[in-house]
Amino acid sequence: MTTHKFEHPLNEKTRIYLRVESLLRQMNHAAQHVDGFHYQLFFRPMFDMLDIFEQIQLKTELAKDLEKQRLNYKSWLNVEGVDQNTLHTILEQIDVVHRDLMSAQRFGQSLKEDRFLSAIRQRFNLPGGSCCFDLPALHFWLHQPESNRLRDIARWQSSLKPLTEALHLWLKLSRETGYEKPQIARAGFFQSDAEEANILRLSIPLQYGTYPMISGHKNRFAIKFISFETGQAYPNDVEFDLAICS
Amino acid sequence: MTTHKFEHPLNEKTRIYLRVESLLRQMNHAAQHVDGFHYQLFFRPMFDMLDIFEQIQLKTELAKDLEKQRLNYKSWLNVEGVDQNTLHTILEQIDVVHRDLMSAQRFGQSLKEDRFLSAIRQRFNLPGGSCCFDLPALHFWLHQPESNRLRDIARWQSSLKPLTEALHLWLKLSRETGYEKPQIARAGFFQSDAEEANILRLSIPLQYGTYPMISGHKNRFAIKFISFETGQAYPNDVEFDLAICS
Repeated sequence: MTTHKFEHPLNEKTRIYLRVESLLRQMNHAAQHVDGFHYQLFFRPMFDMLDIFEQIQLKTELAKDLEKQRLNYKSWLNVEGVDQNTLHTILEQIDVVHRDLMSAQRFGQSLKEDRFLSAIRQRFNLPGGSCCFDLPALHFWLHQPESNRLRDIARWQSSLKPLTEALHLWLKLSRETGYEKPQIARAGFFQSDAEEANILRLSIPLQYGTYPMISGHKNRFAIKFISFETGQAYPNDVEFDLAICS
Repeated sequence: MTTHKFEHPLNEKTRIYLRVESLLRQMNHAAQHVDGFHYQLFFRPMFDMLDIFEQIQLKTELAKDLEKQRLNYKSWLNVEGVDQNTLHTILEQIDVVHRDLMSAQRFGQSLKEDRFLSAIRQRFNLPGGSCCFDLPALHFWLHQPESNRLRDIARWQSSLKPLTEALHLWLKLSRETGYEKPQIARAGFFQSDAEEANILRLSIPLQYGTYPMISGHKNRFAIKFISFETGQAYPNDVEFDLAICS
């Protein structure tokens, strides 16, 4: 049965983590093919990320959250029945990633200082503002040999490596705390308690023709299913899978 | 010799026409492949166009400009040495496109009234705001069978047909008024008079490593070549081709 995978953050910080993860994924995917047509798929997520870095001290927050995960995993050291090899591997991963994060410069600093990038960033959000006459330097760059473009792209990407690795590890460990369990939303509605949860992960069979609207916070949440066709509340039961991740 | 093609509008209205042309091109190109990764390339130019339609009465402006072209071509009727067959074909094209334009509803009206589109448009410009939790309806739509998505896309595109045809004709006729001639920018600088010009079209050999910064208006303009590497004025002569289109 084809399902619709869906993730929902239960707090503002996780919301930003998931957004940045999505932007990094878009940017890295697009990096393989930056031409006169697809270039927006690369530059726009990069500039969106720079906007986010200006709003939140992402490095500090991520370091704190990795530290919390480290303490949590440490509490399982020497506990009987816990696979100590796996545990040590995870703790080492956290150590490496945390250290690289702490020694990294402020996220996006080198991208913000890049003359070419800062010149095109200003005009990128004008409606239709990426014509050659709006961004002549960008259009010249797009005419450069592919090897030059790939070299620049690799340089820009590499400055985001400590962020990418820290974020991926934190999200991976967070997602691994939850297990999908079958649930039923009676008359399209489901609510439940949670305990310091960060992310809800849902698998919804496509056949219902619904998508979820989720509200709540780390200790309590509600899911209301909406019919795509009508835009109104879905009136029938929905069987779906739900994982609550902390 | 590989060249860098470059267009520059000499007034605000032509600037908007070129932007809308570029947005339509992006949108129509992207329409062939709207999936979970490329969808931004389709929706973003559409929403950028809706922003532009809210700022300028594009339909009225375009109708006036086509009318001017019609009057101009009519003045060549029965003039000796002018190919009357070609002239009649052009005048018929203008008639058809102008009539379709006048009978069309306000540009973007049906797109603005589309419940699905207006729901996703609001959040599209948030930095990183196209995650599944920000736009659940969009992500459900992306899970629809391809035939459904293509049907929706064709419907959205068809509402822009009168605009597309009028704009393409006006720009085609405008571009045809100019012919590329070789020019030299002494020490990277060129200026010239023009007569009611709308668009400058340049072909610049890539070997110089420069792009143009153009200022001016319909009767006079200046081109300053910038070195891509340094971001400073290019100090040497640049041989390029230039067409001045009215």
